[in-house]
Amino acid sequence: MAKELKDKQFVKEIADMNEDFPQWYTDVILKTQLVDYGPVKGTMVIRPYGYEIWEHIQEELNKRFKATGHKNAYFPMFIPYSFLVKEAEHVEGFAPEVALVTHIGDTPLEEKLVVRPTSETIICSMYSKWVQSYRDLPLLINQWANVVRWEKTTRPFLRTSEFLWQEGHTLHCSEEEAREETLKMLELYREFMQNVLAIDVLTGVKTEKEKFAGAVDTYAMEAMMLDGKSLQAGTSHYLGKNFASAFEIKYLDRDGQLKNPYQTSWGVSTRLIGALIMAHGDQRGLKLPPRVAPVQTVIVPVAFHKDGVLQKAIEVSDRLKKAGVRVELDDRDQSPGWKYNEWEMKGVPIRLEIGPRDIENGQAMAVRRDTLEKIPVALDALETEIPKLLDDIHENLYEMSREFLHSHICVCGDMEEMKTALDNKNFVKAMWCGCRECEDKIKEELAATTRVMPFDQTPVGDVCVCCKKPATKVVYFAKSY
Amino acid sequence: MAKELKDKQFVKEIADMNEDFPQWYTDVILKTQLVDYGPVKGTMVIRPYGYEIWEHIQEELNKRFKATGHKNAYFPMFIPYSFLVKEAEHVEGFAPEVALVTHIGDTPLEEKLVVRPTSETIICSMYSKWVQSYRDLPLLINQWANVVRWEKTTRPFLRTSEFLWQEGHTLHCSEEEAREETLKMLELYREFMQNVLAIDVLTGVKTEKEKFAGAVDTYAMEAMMLDGKSLQAGTSHYLGKNFASAFEIKYLDRDGQLKNPYQTSWGVSTRLIGALIMAHGDQRGLKLPPRVAPVQTVIVPVAFHKDGVLQKAIEVSDRLKKAGVRVELDDRDQSPGWKYNEWEMKGVPIRLEIGPRDIENGQAMAVRRDTLEKIPVALDALETEIPKLLDDIHENLYEMSREFLHSHICVCGDMEEMKTALDNKNFVKAMWCGCRECEDKIKEELAATTRVMPFDQTPVGDVCVCCKKPATKVVYFAKSY
Repeated sequence: MAKELKDKQFVKEIADMNEDFPQWYTDVILKTQLVDYGPVKGTMVIRPYGYEIWEHIQEELNKRFKATGHKNAYFPMFIPYSFLVKEAEHVEGFAPEVALVTHIGDTPLEEKLVVRPTSETIICSMYSKWVQSYRDLPLLINQWANVVRWEKTTRPFLRTSEFLWQEGHTLHCSEEEAREETLKMLELYREFMQNVLAIDVLTGVKTEKEKFAGAVDTYAMEAMMLDGKSLQAGTSHYLGKNFASAFEIKYLDRDGQLKNPYQTSWGVSTRLIGALIMAHGDQRGLKLPPRVAPVQTVIVPVAFHKDGVLQKAIEVSDRLKKAGVRVELDDRDQSPGWKYNEWEMKGVPIRLEIGPRDIENGQAMAVRRDTLEKIPVALDALETEIPKLLDDIHENLYEMSREFLHSHICVCGDMEEMKTALDNKNFVKAMWCGCRECEDKIKEELAATTRVMPFDQTPVGDVCVCCKKPATKVVYFAKSY
Repeated sequence: MAKELKDKQFVKEIADMNEDFPQWYTDVILKTQLVDYGPVKGTMVIRPYGYEIWEHIQEELNKRFKATGHKNAYFPMFIPYSFLVKEAEHVEGFAPEVALVTHIGDTPLEEKLVVRPTSETIICSMYSKWVQSYRDLPLLINQWANVVRWEKTTRPFLRTSEFLWQEGHTLHCSEEEAREETLKMLELYREFMQNVLAIDVLTGVKTEKEKFAGAVDTYAMEAMMLDGKSLQAGTSHYLGKNFASAFEIKYLDRDGQLKNPYQTSWGVSTRLIGALIMAHGDQRGLKLPPRVAPVQTVIVPVAFHKDGVLQKAIEVSDRLKKAGVRVELDDRDQSPGWKYNEWEMKGVPIRLEIGPRDIENGQAMAVRRDTLEKIPVALDALETEIPKLLDDIHENLYEMSREFLHSHICVCGDMEEMKTALDNKNFVKAMWCGCRECEDKIKEELAATTRVMPFDQTPVGDVCVCCKKPATKVVYFAKSY
């Protein structure tokens, strides 16, 4: 922690991130008013400052989904219980944690209803009505919705009983095309993480143990948080014909045969807000990536009771708004220092200080949240310089994320090395024999799980890091959220 | 019905709107793939063509909400049952139709949870934590969400067990300010109906019987459907201190006193999609108002196997997209006539026909969905002419809606006149004594209800249309959805 911060109030307000990262997270999300706890255990209220981040995430993803031919739709939240049971693995995975509606007012329902934990089943029931011919394929639909999964241990954004997400559900004529879609959406997510949230991720395929209940293959992206833990930030599933055959989706192919189509599903959630907090934050609070920041530049007039200062600040604010920058002018009756702390905690990428002397010199002082660097900017050039600076901040945040991730991956050959690496907040890259026993043992002894098997399977050894038998798989292990 | 339509296929497909309006509605919404029935009774699936209308409604409303200082947030869907009970009228109104979650998997919950039918109670429980000082007011928050109200008779968009909506919830220091907000949002909705959905509405205040459960006053806008029935298209409630005192929301005012703030709430829902279908449609199907139409202009190349036709159509499509028009190029292997019928049914505002002769003449033929008029447009001028034509169509649709509404309002002095007016698909403007008995009697005998009491209370008589006692209120009565 920087020396000059010691006396500042917010140091007392926010727990030390090196000593107690979970408490740092809780302090930051509550004090910046991103979120609050809902009255029902495990639920969260997404407050306006947090929700606007979600709105920008939605805009950016919608742009990408639509550019790749997907359309949004909305399916009912209530699923007949009998639907859940149709796909055997699926019901096993979800049944214990689903919320069940049993009554309307005082009247019991004939069949209890599942509040969707995910929508494969209800969407397949509709697809079986809509799809008749190969001409109806591919079917490329996405949904933005709330879903419910009752979890024992919850944390706002990371794991809550109800959360917001998008779920894509597509049908294809061939396995090849469906597998291509699965990987295309994974890559779309990765590119979004890089270019919007400024977070580098590892991508690859999940092990049998960690895959989605009902999938043939689950692909995922894993992001490294500042405490060295992994956060699964998004998944893309190749479902084969598992659901299509259970729900009797059939189409008449060119050859006159009735066939089940091949299916994918893929999703990201409000968890991404947790990811960006824990990937970029520091002791002062949030560092919001500029492309989703609700406020990209805050203008703090200095000595603003002096003639012309507030007027100039308003003028600058209007000009930047016109240039497409999300600006807030802080004209509250508080000291500049108090405001600096507040906006630093809230993670606003650029603070623009405008005082009488600045105006005399025809400039303003831009302070970057990522580096705390002070950069004088000519008032004439704000419309070009501020957007450029926002891009620079984005690039720098991404570079720091990339650097942090790749400098915290240790290649390990045995359990001892693995333990040391994990204790020092690293991800572990290691060989694995492929058997469930070793996966379970590593989880039990080191509290780490298999995150993904990367696409680049260049071996880093010959034998399993756990059982020492011949190994075929390169795997990333980590502690995780 | 126009003579020339008689032989066309879609006449057989869509029920006659004059003979069976409900069946016309059902035929249109299903055949144009706006919506489908969900597997649980009373639920709907909003298909991509319908959902994109909702997305444009959201964009337009969000613009207006944000311009008036409101911010979006998200509150949990599950409300502890004990919350519902806190406001006496509220629980009475909603308790019989709420969906209740009683179990997670096999485990019963300690307290049953209400799936939100509206969010006053849970939002107030949060506001009571957030609001401490007059500096925290006004608090202006909106939420986009799904809500559940179990209804006996359901119809897609109009009345479904689950629907999508927005609900604004605001707190204010004074009654005056809260009442001003209530009316401001009603006017915002009215302006939106006019300038986006091209529908004229009547606005005013609801009677005691028809107001929201828990409100002091409910204001509403009522739109006239083509069958002469009224559809309540949006409401704005002045809640006084009813919820604020039940939920103990208190703030320290400038004078050092702890006070309950004054509250409003207001909402519109996916019902608006039903409104625009039934306000604008005709025997051919939908007529979508251009500003929410998923496709604003469909390009149908004529004889498109001929040299250069498809190429020109693609060029025109690209140019219009760049000009900000939502365009679709229909290059399917079907006859132009088949395509014309399909896109007319789907209500696309402009069809642009491009054939070899058109290209020779440097023009394309624009066909308006609203008037079926054919207008040659120079290919060079498309970027300016098509947006202008879309605005014309909007204006014409609004004019038709306004004209239809105002030519179907009958001033009535007694029950006989009222019966005739209602039978002839009119709204009734009449005097009312203000007592519940007359309201009930009119409902029982004429199946009409009080819709709103308009702001302009210039009397149209002296005595109540029903009991003939002295009357003080001008009321619109109508059959309604």
